[in-house]
Amino acid sequence: MSRFWNANTRGITPYVPGEQQKEGIFIKLNTNENPYPPSPKVADIIRNMDPALLRLYPKPDGDPLKKAVSEYYGVSENEVFVGNGSDEVLALIFKAFFDNSTTVAFPDITYSFYPVYCRLFGIPYLQIPLKDDFSIDFADYPSNARGVIFANPNAPTGLFVDTRVIEDFLKSRPDTLVVVDEAYVDFGCTSCAGLVSMYDNLLVVQTLSKSRSLAGLRIGYAIGNVSLIEGLKRLKDSFNSYPVDTIAQLAGAAAIKDKDYFETVRNMIIETRERTKEIFRNMGLTVTDSKANFLFARIPGIPGHSALEKLRQKGILVRNFNAGRISDYLRITVGTDDEMAKVVESIKAIMAE
Amino acid sequence: MSRFWNANTRGITPYVPGEQQKEGIFIKLNTNENPYPPSPKVADIIRNMDPALLRLYPKPDGDPLKKAVSEYYGVSENEVFVGNGSDEVLALIFKAFFDNSTTVAFPDITYSFYPVYCRLFGIPYLQIPLKDDFSIDFADYPSNARGVIFANPNAPTGLFVDTRVIEDFLKSRPDTLVVVDEAYVDFGCTSCAGLVSMYDNLLVVQTLSKSRSLAGLRIGYAIGNVSLIEGLKRLKDSFNSYPVDTIAQLAGAAAIKDKDYFETVRNMIIETRERTKEIFRNMGLTVTDSKANFLFARIPGIPGHSALEKLRQKGILVRNFNAGRISDYLRITVGTDDEMAKVVESIKAIMAE
Repeated sequence: MSRFWNANTRGITPYVPGEQQKEGIFIKLNTNENPYPPSPKVADIIRNMDPALLRLYPKPDGDPLKKAVSEYYGVSENEVFVGNGSDEVLALIFKAFFDNSTTVAFPDITYSFYPVYCRLFGIPYLQIPLKDDFSIDFADYPSNARGVIFANPNAPTGLFVDTRVIEDFLKSRPDTLVVVDEAYVDFGCTSCAGLVSMYDNLLVVQTLSKSRSLAGLRIGYAIGNVSLIEGLKRLKDSFNSYPVDTIAQLAGAAAIKDKDYFETVRNMIIETRERTKEIFRNMGLTVTDSKANFLFARIPGIPGHSALEKLRQKGILVRNFNAGRISDYLRITVGTDDEMAKVVESIKAIMAE
Repeated sequence: MSRFWNANTRGITPYVPGEQQKEGIFIKLNTNENPYPPSPKVADIIRNMDPALLRLYPKPDGDPLKKAVSEYYGVSENEVFVGNGSDEVLALIFKAFFDNSTTVAFPDITYSFYPVYCRLFGIPYLQIPLKDDFSIDFADYPSNARGVIFANPNAPTGLFVDTRVIEDFLKSRPDTLVVVDEAYVDFGCTSCAGLVSMYDNLLVVQTLSKSRSLAGLRIGYAIGNVSLIEGLKRLKDSFNSYPVDTIAQLAGAAAIKDKDYFETVRNMIIETRERTKEIFRNMGLTVTDSKANFLFARIPGIPGHSALEKLRQKGILVRNFNAGRISDYLRITVGTDDEMAKVVESIKAIMAE
């Protein structure tokens, strides 16, 4: 440790992303990546890109991308903020709207980056236990919380909250900023983006990493009331004026515009998920009703860390969270049908051992 | 303003980047972009990129880029930190090593993002006046400052401090973290990168935006002692695990490896700068001895804002900083010979009016 690390740097416990491994050696189902390539329109943009353009700074506010998002969701361009992956967008939301004088509440089981942001920026937080069935009950959230954030569908449970329930919550808590992290929303849920024109206490965060197969390009965005977006823009311009590069702005816009390809890919993933869910249940696994691009499952009689290790030995990477009541569950990204057949076969072998 | 803006968001004054204008209408000499395209090796990487790779997350620590930087400067890979443009790298440096209990000092005339970072993260700062000739005198910097940061060559003056002087300062202030922002170092100065193995209180920050013509790809990096780099990595992993996208990692590495192209381009820019400097002086302008890819010049008898406006009317964008004793200077990016000929012609016309 350098003597120059400040108190915060000494004290932080960073987020740990899923292990990155060389392709081909493992079937990689541990970071919720899409098993299919991005739209061919993305490939066209990249192949036909004029490299001379790269000598110039990108559009500071990601105009092509912002426009594509605004058209897709029927919101105005100044209701959209784009950033370098939804992680950056989330970090800026925590820094723009919360501080040491405000409390943020989120489920005890959810995206594990939320408490990391709070500690990074010195924001007090409350972790509200999910119900025994892993559902969120908004009645449990204190009315004086300045912010409430949750993933919808939630991670790693895959369970979702209906937008009508979220709307009731928005109405009942006008002084709470509600942040809905919709990283996985495209795999079977309804987005809250349609509610931003009615509720100025709502921010919806999405990413192109999952449903658009663009994890490698780092594109995320927030949709919300004009003045929330303006706050994010002020903060961005105090941190890094040009967070999204020129290629990502153009390729991301192309991905959003190619609705047909998007539908095809997400439907394939949904079908594979539902089929695998059924097979898992018939094998005796406990499986949540995930609406995301992953399954959350427990193999009877086998501790989570042990199941993870056994699958790894069989060449399959999944994720396990060593945390209380979910420690015996595995989060298994939905891969191709072939990959999932190997997962099923491997779990059968592990159960038979 | 939203009621959800926190005190910080309400209070910040964001950095204002140079105006972005449509190409072709203006000769754009206001943001220190390189007038030449990036290396043809960059074009090859982009054209031959397998888009299917983009479905996967990038290497979290930017391995290909880190390797290229480490080989170029003869440092180890764990002495290199890469980020989404040097602005992000600088922001993370301020957040990792300084806080409300430490003071950071920098010149009163330098990159205007430094005070923005301080206000963003609540860091007390001192702006130390440059000497009358715009030089930095380290004797003016208080010995109890936790951090000292300056651009070398400095912006917008273009003047540089010799590495021997910096080395003496590093020796005399072992408890001060010295951050040397070398955004413009390739246009005629020596880097301090060779000193990091000897001084654990030194961080060198560079960018591919200027000398490698890659402003559009957002690539910056820091070189420093292993434990300073480890501190930055901890912070990065608490903010955004994957700040540099896959294409940028590969294209940036290609740009760094193509030393011949780099030499050719930077030499052209240096020659154009020196020639234009001479012409400006012969015309009666006051011009600093800039070692950067811009000239810093004052037209006799014409206020800076007025000179900027007159050049704009002639189709040329430059920058003027409405700040005290530099308010009559223009910062003019070194463009192609043709572009600079038009600048000379336009200034002659303005002076003749």
